[in-house]
Amino acid sequence: MAKELTSRSVDYSQWYNDLVIKAGLAENSAVRGCMVIKPYGYSIWEKMQAALDKMFKDTGHSNAYFPLFIPKSFFSREAKHVEGFAKECAIVTHYRLKNAPDGHGVVVDETSKLEEELIIRPTSETIIWNTYKGWIQSYRDLPILVNQWANVVRWEMRTRLFLRTAEFLWQEGHTAHETKEEAVEETIKMLNVYSEFAEKFLAIPVLKGRKTESEKFAGGEDTYTIEGLMQDGKALQCGTSHFLGQNFAKAFDVKYASRNGSLEYVWATSWGVSTRLVGALIMAHSDDNGLILPPKMAPIQVVIIPIYKSEAELAQVSEKANQIKKVLEAKNISVQYDNRDTQKPGWKFAEYELKGVPVRIAIGPKDLANKTIEIARRDTLEKKTYPDDQVEIIVEQMLEDIQNNLYKKALKFRNENTFKVDTYEDFKRILEEKGGFISAHWDGTAETENKIKEETKATIRYIPMDQAEEIGKCIYSGKPSKGRVIFAKAY
Amino acid sequence: MAKELTSRSVDYSQWYNDLVIKAGLAENSAVRGCMVIKPYGYSIWEKMQAALDKMFKDTGHSNAYFPLFIPKSFFSREAKHVEGFAKECAIVTHYRLKNAPDGHGVVVDETSKLEEELIIRPTSETIIWNTYKGWIQSYRDLPILVNQWANVVRWEMRTRLFLRTAEFLWQEGHTAHETKEEAVEETIKMLNVYSEFAEKFLAIPVLKGRKTESEKFAGGEDTYTIEGLMQDGKALQCGTSHFLGQNFAKAFDVKYASRNGSLEYVWATSWGVSTRLVGALIMAHSDDNGLILPPKMAPIQVVIIPIYKSEAELAQVSEKANQIKKVLEAKNISVQYDNRDTQKPGWKFAEYELKGVPVRIAIGPKDLANKTIEIARRDTLEKKTYPDDQVEIIVEQMLEDIQNNLYKKALKFRNENTFKVDTYEDFKRILEEKGGFISAHWDGTAETENKIKEETKATIRYIPMDQAEEIGKCIYSGKPSKGRVIFAKAY
Repeated sequence: MAKELTSRSVDYSQWYNDLVIKAGLAENSAVRGCMVIKPYGYSIWEKMQAALDKMFKDTGHSNAYFPLFIPKSFFSREAKHVEGFAKECAIVTHYRLKNAPDGHGVVVDETSKLEEELIIRPTSETIIWNTYKGWIQSYRDLPILVNQWANVVRWEMRTRLFLRTAEFLWQEGHTAHETKEEAVEETIKMLNVYSEFAEKFLAIPVLKGRKTESEKFAGGEDTYTIEGLMQDGKALQCGTSHFLGQNFAKAFDVKYASRNGSLEYVWATSWGVSTRLVGALIMAHSDDNGLILPPKMAPIQVVIIPIYKSEAELAQVSEKANQIKKVLEAKNISVQYDNRDTQKPGWKFAEYELKGVPVRIAIGPKDLANKTIEIARRDTLEKKTYPDDQVEIIVEQMLEDIQNNLYKKALKFRNENTFKVDTYEDFKRILEEKGGFISAHWDGTAETENKIKEETKATIRYIPMDQAEEIGKCIYSGKPSKGRVIFAKAY
Repeated sequence: MAKELTSRSVDYSQWYNDLVIKAGLAENSAVRGCMVIKPYGYSIWEKMQAALDKMFKDTGHSNAYFPLFIPKSFFSREAKHVEGFAKECAIVTHYRLKNAPDGHGVVVDETSKLEEELIIRPTSETIIWNTYKGWIQSYRDLPILVNQWANVVRWEMRTRLFLRTAEFLWQEGHTAHETKEEAVEETIKMLNVYSEFAEKFLAIPVLKGRKTESEKFAGGEDTYTIEGLMQDGKALQCGTSHFLGQNFAKAFDVKYASRNGSLEYVWATSWGVSTRLVGALIMAHSDDNGLILPPKMAPIQVVIIPIYKSEAELAQVSEKANQIKKVLEAKNISVQYDNRDTQKPGWKFAEYELKGVPVRIAIGPKDLANKTIEIARRDTLEKKTYPDDQVEIIVEQMLEDIQNNLYKKALKFRNENTFKVDTYEDFKRILEEKGGFISAHWDGTAETENKIKEETKATIRYIPMDQAEEIGKCIYSGKPSKGRVIFAKAY
């Protein structure tokens, strides 16, 4: 099966699509731009959800749920939000079908037209801040630390499985605070939660920074981002955390009685990651044989495949396999024993390589005789025979090794593909030849940012945080600059 | 706070609404018929999700995700489905907003009209079976055992928090099988999963049975239900499991190559429970002081409240409280220590009674001196002083007791409110005076069923499964009947 994948060097984009489909992660649906997340892909998302949800709760957040629909007028309340946010969205205008007059199927009942159209949430700041108005009277009601796991819809014209779909799944945190300092602190705290999650669980090293004015969230004050580098040298924004100032509080008139009795507008943050991370996970680590999953995100961590000719051999091998399965499961390792007789071992090897199962154990009659097992690791494709009485120690250690190795490999790749340039010629040459992150001086204007984007497709991924001042000249305009920013072509 | 609840005897319906609002479970939103599930209410739903999800996975199911949108034409494919299913739904007709010509706000861009309208899923059989067509070629691809956690929308005209809302959260299982027998077995298996969940976790005894033709799922062959009895004598359908026959396979042309090579239509089931269960949980157990939560569904199982006058006393009490918290948490008991200095102990007692926290511990200076603690249980409101060195044993046992006691109490209530009647006069009198479940003979016609519903508002909740034949006469028509069915007024 794995052989049917387009190789990365031939067509990275096709390789990605092939992989998502053939590994059974997701597929396009009958609805334009919407995907079906298949069980194997969804189980990766569940792993992400579980890890993130715990981190959110450990930092004091609770989950809640707000309506799917947002009254159209809510969008106009925050001027920059409506101006800057994409207007492509799904609009509900009617609420009833009726049997078609010609007797075939159903048609929209025109008498059921809504007085005010409803928008399927593209993000929930407006409906949530309209709700918070009822929750907040005094400083005693603050902070509010709420997260929502939900589906959202943005009517994207060009979609790609996981990376950009009309409907996607995400979490959106929405917090309310007494002071600016507290809100800024929360914004950075959640950015750090995201980067810790990306590095520890996804094994994706990420860089943190602030977005430029043109790239920040419409209606916010500051957007912070974590950016990962994919194997084709393009950056992928893996999560964002927004300091929203008092903008939404003002738009929805949310004030609190402060400790000294005055009425003040509430300070806000919002932050989110989405099923896009499944796309990032795939692109960061996988190879031409298929997926490579970091063990912490692998729905199946170990697969055991029996090698046998007769039923009697299978029975003996199965006894051993089930023993090993039990021992590993007692260590909280997820194990699948694939004893299907409809497929040959070679087919199974390829199948689990394609699916990115980190560790593969094969057991045959010879192994039983020699008290050995064969263990292969997915990341390096190394295969070795071990004494069978050490299996739990070896596998446990190997899973940890793979997790660390994938991170190190991705970090090495990123380091090798991060460049400092001082001229526009070098900038364009490196972008063309290698891609990657490019650190360069910028004059701080949206005009220059746009020109560079138009000419090279590279965008400013972020402005580094807390960097020392470095006086230089903008690579494009030659005007003075006080510091470097990070450019890349991006997903 | 609790005192502001309307009492159940005065107005049960108002009591319910008061309770949902005042306990901070949910509230109405700015969007007609849609609720906001607040953190405390959502955490109960999370407990339900976790327990059910584990049961689904233990029975071999995986989660997946299908699009929110369903092309309008899909509904017409299964004739009975479109005929019988409510046509009140949210319809997406456009995909773009634009700035209003007058400069105020946004309007729908009429040029963005969709060629085919999209319906927000009221249930997903159609889009899922359209997808399964691509997944199923041969018997080797079967069974498919998939579940989806999702939001759905049904444009209900009269809504009530949790019980009936335009948007609600649910899970919908959709399985595909080789044979009729296997599909029927799955239908019953999941019905049993639901009843086990209701009884073990929600402490709600439920009755199982089959729906009549008029009450069954539109497009299915048989609908099975679990029905609980609320404190006002009304039944509440807590979950349904449908045997769908080959109807959706035929509508979406899903065939498989059988073991003998012939092409056959696939057999289907679907099954679901929703956030409605939060409403059931509230109504089954709570009292005029507030919520009563079975410990297995309680976000906070134990609250500790300090009694103190001085800072010094608080410090001493806190040391003890944190000790106890740690000991209990080590036993996987969730504990909240409420040391807020903004509220008095009496206020806190009422607050946690309102919120249904099963066990309350109070500790004051006298307790420290006497090496005692005061423990109160929410279900019986009993309060007693215990030696402080037995706290973990006592609390653990008490949580188990409360869980069992709530179930027993609800079962006793149901038994006392289940009646066998043989005349229509008795039927109406009992319905009027007591409500409850009424077992009576029915002639099997939709006509009689409808007449009884019109005249008394009672519906046939279910036809008992596997009951011995009992010859009798229909209470309404006097025509012959082969067995009793169960009537009730219902939510």
